[in-house]
Amino acid sequence: MTAAGAAPWSGAGGPEEERRARAALTGVLEPGDERAGRLVREWGAVGLIRELTAPGRGPQAPAAADRRRLDGYRGRAATADPDRYLATAAAVGGRFVCPGSPQWPTQLDDLGDARPVGLWLRGLPDLRTWALRSVAVVGARACTPYGAHMAQSLAAGLAERGWVVVSGAAYGIDGAAHRGALAAGGATAAVLACGVDVAYPRGHAGLLGRIAQQGLVIGELPPGSHPTAGRFVLRNRVIAALTRGTVVVEAAHRSGSLVTARRAQGLGRFTMGVPGPATSGLSAGVHELLRGEGVLVTDAEEVIELVGGMGELAPARRGPVLARDLLHPDTARVLDAVPAVGSARAADLAHAAGTGTDEVIGRLYELHSLGFVERQGDGWQLTRRTPGGATRTGGTRRGGH
Amino acid sequence: MTAAGAAPWSGAGGPEEERRARAALTGVLEPGDERAGRLVREWGAVGLIRELTAPGRGPQAPAAADRRRLDGYRGRAATADPDRYLATAAAVGGRFVCPGSPQWPTQLDDLGDARPVGLWLRGLPDLRTWALRSVAVVGARACTPYGAHMAQSLAAGLAERGWVVVSGAAYGIDGAAHRGALAAGGATAAVLACGVDVAYPRGHAGLLGRIAQQGLVIGELPPGSHPTAGRFVLRNRVIAALTRGTVVVEAAHRSGSLVTARRAQGLGRFTMGVPGPATSGLSAGVHELLRGEGVLVTDAEEVIELVGGMGELAPARRGPVLARDLLHPDTARVLDAVPAVGSARAADLAHAAGTGTDEVIGRLYELHSLGFVERQGDGWQLTRRTPGGATRTGGTRRGGH
Repeated sequence: MTAAGAAPWSGAGGPEEERRARAALTGVLEPGDERAGRLVREWGAVGLIRELTAPGRGPQAPAAADRRRLDGYRGRAATADPDRYLATAAAVGGRFVCPGSPQWPTQLDDLGDARPVGLWLRGLPDLRTWALRSVAVVGARACTPYGAHMAQSLAAGLAERGWVVVSGAAYGIDGAAHRGALAAGGATAAVLACGVDVAYPRGHAGLLGRIAQQGLVIGELPPGSHPTAGRFVLRNRVIAALTRGTVVVEAAHRSGSLVTARRAQGLGRFTMGVPGPATSGLSAGVHELLRGEGVLVTDAEEVIELVGGMGELAPARRGPVLARDLLHPDTARVLDAVPAVGSARAADLAHAAGTGTDEVIGRLYELHSLGFVERQGDGWQLTRRTPGGATRTGGTRRGGH
Repeated sequence: MTAAGAAPWSGAGGPEEERRARAALTGVLEPGDERAGRLVREWGAVGLIRELTAPGRGPQAPAAADRRRLDGYRGRAATADPDRYLATAAAVGGRFVCPGSPQWPTQLDDLGDARPVGLWLRGLPDLRTWALRSVAVVGARACTPYGAHMAQSLAAGLAERGWVVVSGAAYGIDGAAHRGALAAGGATAAVLACGVDVAYPRGHAGLLGRIAQQGLVIGELPPGSHPTAGRFVLRNRVIAALTRGTVVVEAAHRSGSLVTARRAQGLGRFTMGVPGPATSGLSAGVHELLRGEGVLVTDAEEVIELVGGMGELAPARRGPVLARDLLHPDTARVLDAVPAVGSARAADLAHAAGTGTDEVIGRLYELHSLGFVERQGDGWQLTRRTPGGATRTGGTRRGGH
């Protein structure tokens, strides 16, 4: 039953063993535990799981305060079974990504040692690429019809304009946001406070299935995990960090959605709110936010104007969302390999960039979502400017001429 | 019929003739005419009316551009009849105040040469004192029941806390604001785009009568004048300048209320808006304002927190609203005369301050409305701090000890 016993942590397995150790740790550590996160950073995941499963066999003796925390985790560590987690996830079409994976959304690194050790995913899209162009739409469970309408139309508008709508799959505003994006044939991701194979809330089992088909279901906890009150709050930090901004649609004073919004603010993300009647208790929290740092938004255009940067002001434009300087160096290398004139196939670009074809394809989809490149037959080319198409480069690309 | 003929403008009558000339000019000049305002400033009102009624008899020859403007006014100037205006106003319990009168609200001087030449008033209160502690509540004529409710409850809350609610007596939000203040037994002032004896809109004749009884009806145009479209817009500058801030409750895009709000902002006043459903076209203008410089407010406390300064944060406090440094020098001199211990009668204070008793009484009421002094039998004393009353001075007063 215990894979830790079946496949002991040798510490000599390289990146694959590190990844398996991180998968194990998702079933051991409480989300957001910064002390444990620091030990993962200092010792590596394998080092930490070795110390947890075989005290004294870690890379060094833990400090007294750390040891007390570790002692609390040893029981779970003894039964954590990464191979079973991975098999269960695979059975529902899921997978595991963690720091170091090409699909890891590096925005989460802004959480510092509270960064998740990894994320379980259901659905095909590349999380890293999606996160770069995503907005959270969150709010009250017991929302009003007005709130549900606003969440749904806002999400539909964002999805229609190529933005990924991230929410928490809860009843009320969250569900309306996911449904709005799905109805528009757009992209949506649900970040759960439980395993990606657990239908919570129960009434959203069908919705979660549709999100897994058309988008992404994301969980910090391994398959089979059930939510607790504390996990909802900690889940919110993932929503806040993953997205470029958070829109709150209806929230009472001191609600969880406001926690997400404030967290987003603390991480330098945009914080927005949809106004409602001043007489509505379910808008009181939003108005509180808007009296502070939050920006009032009433439709998707206003959201995109804020999170999309200057390039998004003109709706017709298809140019890059991010400045070229902000690209990951590996991604920038692939962009450099794309010819200034004509197109090239991924295999040729991989050769030019000195890396593997799979890696290049991941980078190309990232560049595509950012507006730098587009498909041309079975190849890739630099984005033509619209309208007209006289120039072939994205707005911020220079030097290829 | 023409008093200008009956009582020619000698230019030797002193302040009283100047005041009568200003009364005449309210029936001649278009509100907000900055060119004419400059000539009043440079030549005095008597000088201008002399030049208008007897070309060449003004203090100096007008420049060519000024002469063209003056020519447009000569017809009206020939028939302007200040004595009739004053008599008509007096018949409805009205009076005339202008720069130089103790009751002149000096805030209006912020309008520069667009400052009204004078104001016609119905109602007993001292306009100068009232304006110091006033907030404008304005908005759409064709408002929703939600908007009317918000205007009424906001105005009632402001009135209950001792603030004067200023509005434009129009149907919709304006009317609801006046009614809310009246219903709370509070202070309200209506600034009209017509004469103070003209019931406009017709359906608000009863409301205007109650405002004149319990508050103030204010008009820039002489008795008998009727409103024109342009006059509504120019009336808005008076509302904006008179008050410490403007709250917009429901306004469509590009509405007159937004003009008032932007004018207020340009004058350094606070600009506020009450949010509503994002789906409501009548809240769209307000939301536009709130996406700019406007501050979102949902109740009277939030308005007062903004316009009242720090002293208003704690509801129990009765201390001064204005810092002592911001008092008019004449008012500060009267405050200095009030003894640190015990009280003094107005006549004694006038002696101590080296001015007249009437003047001192005006200043004392101003100081009273600002929280610096209070009545004690037939005398005046420095405000006792509440609760307790151990100290006797206002928060910012020093040196008397």
